[in-house]
Amino acid sequence: MERPRHRLHKQLPGSPEPDDHNERSDQEEYAGAPNPDVLLPVLDERELRMLRRAGREWGQMSVRPEEWPQALPVDPDLGSYPGARAIRPTRFGRFVRIKGRGGQLPAVETTSEMEALPSLWGRFLQTARRILLGPPLSATAIALERMRKLVALPVLSADAISSIAYGPQAMLAILVLAGGPGLGYSLPIAAVIAFLMLAVGVSYRQTIRAYPHGGGSYIVAGQNLGRVAGLLAAAGLATDYILTVAVSMAAGVAAITSAIPSLASSTVVIGIGAIVLLLAGNLRGVRQAGSLFAFPTYAFIVAMAALVTVGVVHAAGRGWQPLPHPPVTATEGIGLLLLLRAFSSGSTAMTGIECISNAVPAFQPVEWRNARTTLTWMIGLLITLFAGIMALVALEGVVFDPNVTVLSQLAVRDFGPGLMYAFTQASTAAILLLAANTAYNDFPRLLFLMARDRQAPRLFLAIGDRLAFSNGIIALSVAAVVIFTAFGGQTEALIPLYAVGVFLAFTMSQTGMVVHWWHHRKEVHWQRSLLFNAAGAVLSAIVFITAAVTKFTAGAWVTVIVIVLFIFTALRIRRHYDLASQALALRPSRPGKVSRPEPAPRGRKPPAAEPKRRQPLKTKNLSQKVVRDEAEVEEAPEEIHHLTIVPMATLDLANLRALAYAASFEHPVLALHVSPTEQEAGRFRDYWRIWGNHLPLQVIVSPHRQIVAPFFHYVWSLRRQRPDLTLTVILPEIIVKHWWHRFLHNHTAPRLRRALRPLPKVVVTTVPFHLPH
Amino acid sequence: MERPRHRLHKQLPGSPEPDDHNERSDQEEYAGAPNPDVLLPVLDERELRMLRRAGREWGQMSVRPEEWPQALPVDPDLGSYPGARAIRPTRFGRFVRIKGRGGQLPAVETTSEMEALPSLWGRFLQTARRILLGPPLSATAIALERMRKLVALPVLSADAISSIAYGPQAMLAILVLAGGPGLGYSLPIAAVIAFLMLAVGVSYRQTIRAYPHGGGSYIVAGQNLGRVAGLLAAAGLATDYILTVAVSMAAGVAAITSAIPSLASSTVVIGIGAIVLLLAGNLRGVRQAGSLFAFPTYAFIVAMAALVTVGVVHAAGRGWQPLPHPPVTATEGIGLLLLLRAFSSGSTAMTGIECISNAVPAFQPVEWRNARTTLTWMIGLLITLFAGIMALVALEGVVFDPNVTVLSQLAVRDFGPGLMYAFTQASTAAILLLAANTAYNDFPRLLFLMARDRQAPRLFLAIGDRLAFSNGIIALSVAAVVIFTAFGGQTEALIPLYAVGVFLAFTMSQTGMVVHWWHHRKEVHWQRSLLFNAAGAVLSAIVFITAAVTKFTAGAWVTVIVIVLFIFTALRIRRHYDLASQALALRPSRPGKVSRPEPAPRGRKPPAAEPKRRQPLKTKNLSQKVVRDEAEVEEAPEEIHHLTIVPMATLDLANLRALAYAASFEHPVLALHVSPTEQEAGRFRDYWRIWGNHLPLQVIVSPHRQIVAPFFHYVWSLRRQRPDLTLTVILPEIIVKHWWHRFLHNHTAPRLRRALRPLPKVVVTTVPFHLPH
Repeated sequence: MERPRHRLHKQLPGSPEPDDHNERSDQEEYAGAPNPDVLLPVLDERELRMLRRAGREWGQMSVRPEEWPQALPVDPDLGSYPGARAIRPTRFGRFVRIKGRGGQLPAVETTSEMEALPSLWGRFLQTARRILLGPPLSATAIALERMRKLVALPVLSADAISSIAYGPQAMLAILVLAGGPGLGYSLPIAAVIAFLMLAVGVSYRQTIRAYPHGGGSYIVAGQNLGRVAGLLAAAGLATDYILTVAVSMAAGVAAITSAIPSLASSTVVIGIGAIVLLLAGNLRGVRQAGSLFAFPTYAFIVAMAALVTVGVVHAAGRGWQPLPHPPVTATEGIGLLLLLRAFSSGSTAMTGIECISNAVPAFQPVEWRNARTTLTWMIGLLITLFAGIMALVALEGVVFDPNVTVLSQLAVRDFGPGLMYAFTQASTAAILLLAANTAYNDFPRLLFLMARDRQAPRLFLAIGDRLAFSNGIIALSVAAVVIFTAFGGQTEALIPLYAVGVFLAFTMSQTGMVVHWWHHRKEVHWQRSLLFNAAGAVLSAIVFITAAVTKFTAGAWVTVIVIVLFIFTALRIRRHYDLASQALALRPSRPGKVSRPEPAPRGRKPPAAEPKRRQPLKTKNLSQKVVRDEAEVEEAPEEIHHLTIVPMATLDLANLRALAYAASFEHPVLALHVSPTEQEAGRFRDYWRIWGNHLPLQVIVSPHRQIVAPFFHYVWSLRRQRPDLTLTVILPEIIVKHWWHRFLHNHTAPRLRRALRPLPKVVVTTVPFHLPH
Repeated sequence: MERPRHRLHKQLPGSPEPDDHNERSDQEEYAGAPNPDVLLPVLDERELRMLRRAGREWGQMSVRPEEWPQALPVDPDLGSYPGARAIRPTRFGRFVRIKGRGGQLPAVETTSEMEALPSLWGRFLQTARRILLGPPLSATAIALERMRKLVALPVLSADAISSIAYGPQAMLAILVLAGGPGLGYSLPIAAVIAFLMLAVGVSYRQTIRAYPHGGGSYIVAGQNLGRVAGLLAAAGLATDYILTVAVSMAAGVAAITSAIPSLASSTVVIGIGAIVLLLAGNLRGVRQAGSLFAFPTYAFIVAMAALVTVGVVHAAGRGWQPLPHPPVTATEGIGLLLLLRAFSSGSTAMTGIECISNAVPAFQPVEWRNARTTLTWMIGLLITLFAGIMALVALEGVVFDPNVTVLSQLAVRDFGPGLMYAFTQASTAAILLLAANTAYNDFPRLLFLMARDRQAPRLFLAIGDRLAFSNGIIALSVAAVVIFTAFGGQTEALIPLYAVGVFLAFTMSQTGMVVHWWHHRKEVHWQRSLLFNAAGAVLSAIVFITAAVTKFTAGAWVTVIVIVLFIFTALRIRRHYDLASQALALRPSRPGKVSRPEPAPRGRKPPAAEPKRRQPLKTKNLSQKVVRDEAEVEEAPEEIHHLTIVPMATLDLANLRALAYAASFEHPVLALHVSPTEQEAGRFRDYWRIWGNHLPLQVIVSPHRQIVAPFFHYVWSLRRQRPDLTLTVILPEIIVKHWWHRFLHNHTAPRLRRALRPLPKVVVTTVPFHLPH
């Protein structure tokens, strides 16, 4: 695992970074909530050396710090913004009204409106956003809340326990294809899954102990197995989170439509509405903990426990005699393939088990011990409820019905269609919504971690003004809406996509743990831990392969393709960032400083010899200058040789002001005019003479009336003639007051800027001219 | 009429413009095809004086022309592009491969691809465009073709004569509402319309004589009645042209669907397809003349003549006995209103009469005489065919049928459903397409004339590389498609909108002619001409008012609203351009030069006294400087005082290069860093010290992690502190090689640029850093 560029632990600047950064510190980097205030990359010793070296080249351009006040025509110390704690931001403003030290910072409220164009529409959007999302928060508001076990249990196990709402049903949906004999296999398969839950749970207990600062699959796999393994885990997790939202929404909507069938036709609309609500809530920055979030899980647990208890009492009343299930017609024979498909569908009941191991630092001390206890409770609850529901299904002869969920069927039989039934359905919908919300916490954090490793776009590092990873939240919502809509919001259609990603992540994580224990052979119980994790890895791998193979045509191919694309993209992104940071790194100046002689002049006129230098400071003879490569190379300020080019369309105030600006730097200035004919060119030259002929003028005759192409061509040719020069192109730009006035003016300046962008060492300057009306 | 800023006649620069610019020269300006190569505005004596004066202020910044070669580090004379006639452009390139004089211009082909971003998609679009539109044309390709009368007749009268295809039918569609008695009024109304045609035709004969250089309604009304009258005429014409396209398409499609009823359901699609074809053809620059264009008109004339002849022969055979028309049920009683509505609908048969008077210079000499003769022929043909068709309708008892056009009904009766019928329908569709094409010539030219008078956006002045007014052509197509689709492509629905605009333009034009003759009372026959034009004006006005009133609820309100909006917009545009050119005009420097004393320093620290000046040229004491108004005022180059601000996000190569660029100008430089916390700020300051502390650094602590708003606020505050300074903000910008890499980088530079745009005297410079991969 490469060292991430953004570190969370504070390092004293100037002090060399410890070279022996051991695993402990790596773990600390990933710990807990990310700190949004550490943006500046930490420089290592080599980088600091380069920085010092880069500075030494500045020579006489340097202004000694004691001269700074005299070197500037202004007093730069305008006061500072008040600290976050000192004054709270207003509802709609980022900063409060301030006077500033010395009264120099004017008393204005800088809202983020100032960042947008000052249009009515922009202001409307800004206000709407503030009303929807609330006032901006200061970074200090990120306080890691420590949860008691009884709070952590409902919050962190919602994802896992809610899986009971769709796991058993997904299994039955496959078995029913084989008719009555098929349904007979439900209990054996359930037993295997329950065992698997136990194994994976025990396996994650090891992870919690080894990664007390939080060990997501991405981190564990990446640190122990390497970058690609980490990406495999990340890809699995990413599809897992997206599908958690989609499947939870589908199952939640199904819980509602089972109770109110008339809503069935609006499945997609309700689901998208719920996702949008989650989006808005998470952009607003919903806190993870709190009784609001504990309630649905406990309600669901109560409902399920009541369901199982009542069912068991009923069954005991009739002497444990299973009720006959309604007649089902077999459409497929029983075969290994069918049973494996049923198994992999049913194993979706295990999704969400990894949540607690991600969030170890959120527990009260001793964190890892409390987390382990909570995990044990959760696994116990999960297995009990899963086994109970599966037993009830067998006892009460419930079969899969595409219109009514299995839980709804059981609740109607046990409770009748009264208040208790409504409570069951409502708590099911609520816990599913909560489970989806878990994905909204984890997906953006995964992208953040990937972005920190430069494997995802940097924009996922950004923390919005509500301290949420807004970009990740939006990305998750978009992906979930797409997948939810594409599959019509049907749980059964989404299930085949689901298991693949989850068990890929499980497998990578547990395999990583095996390697971890092998490297930590000194720790106590390492053999036992390694054994548990190895068992977990093997079992997860079996489920992963089973799911990928048996469900491939049913939809798993979508997940497989997404995973492959995800990894490919992440690798490409990493490559780009690596190359970019190489290109941007300070390096020894002019490593291969070759003294190529000036090429012999090929033109009719020889290139100008020794131009008249106005500034006595510059004494080097230009014609002796080393002509360097065309590419951009580092230059100390004194080595930069300027030529300023001002395209003059006409001789109005805007153009002359740009010219005056250019001339004021006292470097060589060349005015350039593009004209369609020689006659017009002559006319411009005449005007130039009337103006006074103060500066060199060149007129390009462009018979096809193009302006940008000949201008670009000319600048390009100048660069070929003297690649050592830095060309500054000064563009006058008319700024209008209202956006609709923009249609009334040419936009040559932006077009020239775009055209010149690919040229090295061509600097573009825009001199604004503001129309007063 | 104000003097247009762009003149077509060449004026020797330096020589004062004649103040006595009489009507003759005004007419010449508007004559014939616009010259795309005259872009530079002609300066008048006052403007030249200002230019000289502006130049005189340059003082020691001036470089004498004999020093130019020494003042520049390059030889600016890179050679020129070959003349248009010397080498023809290639199919896909704007310029051919050239070596350039002295071999300095590198041998490359600058295509317009160089103007676009060098993306695959951009290149694809460029190639597609070239294939569709053909190679670019040089301005010399605009040759005013002189047409013989027999060529001019079909080309210029297509619009008028094609009106027969919908005029009579539109009239019958109203009369049929009153049943049999209503139809009895068709011949009297037709007689009135025929008389009107004669009167308007005679009236336009006068216009041709008075405006031998082409007298469109906009010009005639504008020159004689003033700006608003000109705009009224222009608004009428603009709606006329848009509706000509829409109605011709509707009638043309009706001619086709009458013959092939199964296509009736695709009316809108066929119409839009035809408009798109016209758009592409006109962007390609379809030449106006040629036998291709003469054929449909003659074919239509032949078909109509045959139709009338055969019908008359049939009628003579049965002793001129009119055939009984099929029973029609009256839904309205006959009243004056109904008759007036029928009249105004029928008068759409006159649209297009003005075409010839627009295009007088396109005739062979003596132009006006040939044009008059052609107009007479056209009026004769128009009246003959119109009267013949109306007579046939009465004789053959044809009534309005929404599914089959009147011409189609007549053709079936006269010719039977054979070849001759097909020829009639095909020639009708063809002439209607040609009539729509006339609008494609005239609408962009109208917008060009308006833009020249600064009453339309400047972009309508632009002549594309195929020498067509591309923007006007696109605007017309969009408007026509909108109106065609909104009215379902039904001729009857569009007709009520039509007459209003046409007769408004006629009225303004003829009224203008009356004033013209009154001012030219010395010319022969002025009384007779005035009388004819007055009669035309009165009759047109009557039709205009009738159409506007009787058709108001049926659709004319759309046209009235469009006309009002059009005029309002044109006036606003003119106002904006006037204010803009006032703002941009060179003026006496510092008219109200007030010597306000420096305000007392309000800050904790006093503003820096006399900064350390490195350049011996600048000797003025800054603290004695006159503090001027915040607004931008003219400054000679020596009076510009610089402060350069470089926002430093981090200390990488891109940022340091921007800093070096800033420092190389040897003006005061201030580096600015925005940091979320004091700790981070300290870390940056430490790095700055390690780099060498070469330049003044200011760190803004922004507790809410915003960058743009605090930066903007800071710059704004600096401007308040020293409004006389010109602040240059130097932004390092990372340029990526592929567009998809843009998602991987921040876009602070463009956001800062946008935010700083409204600030006066803040210049933004972009120093590019090109990532190699």
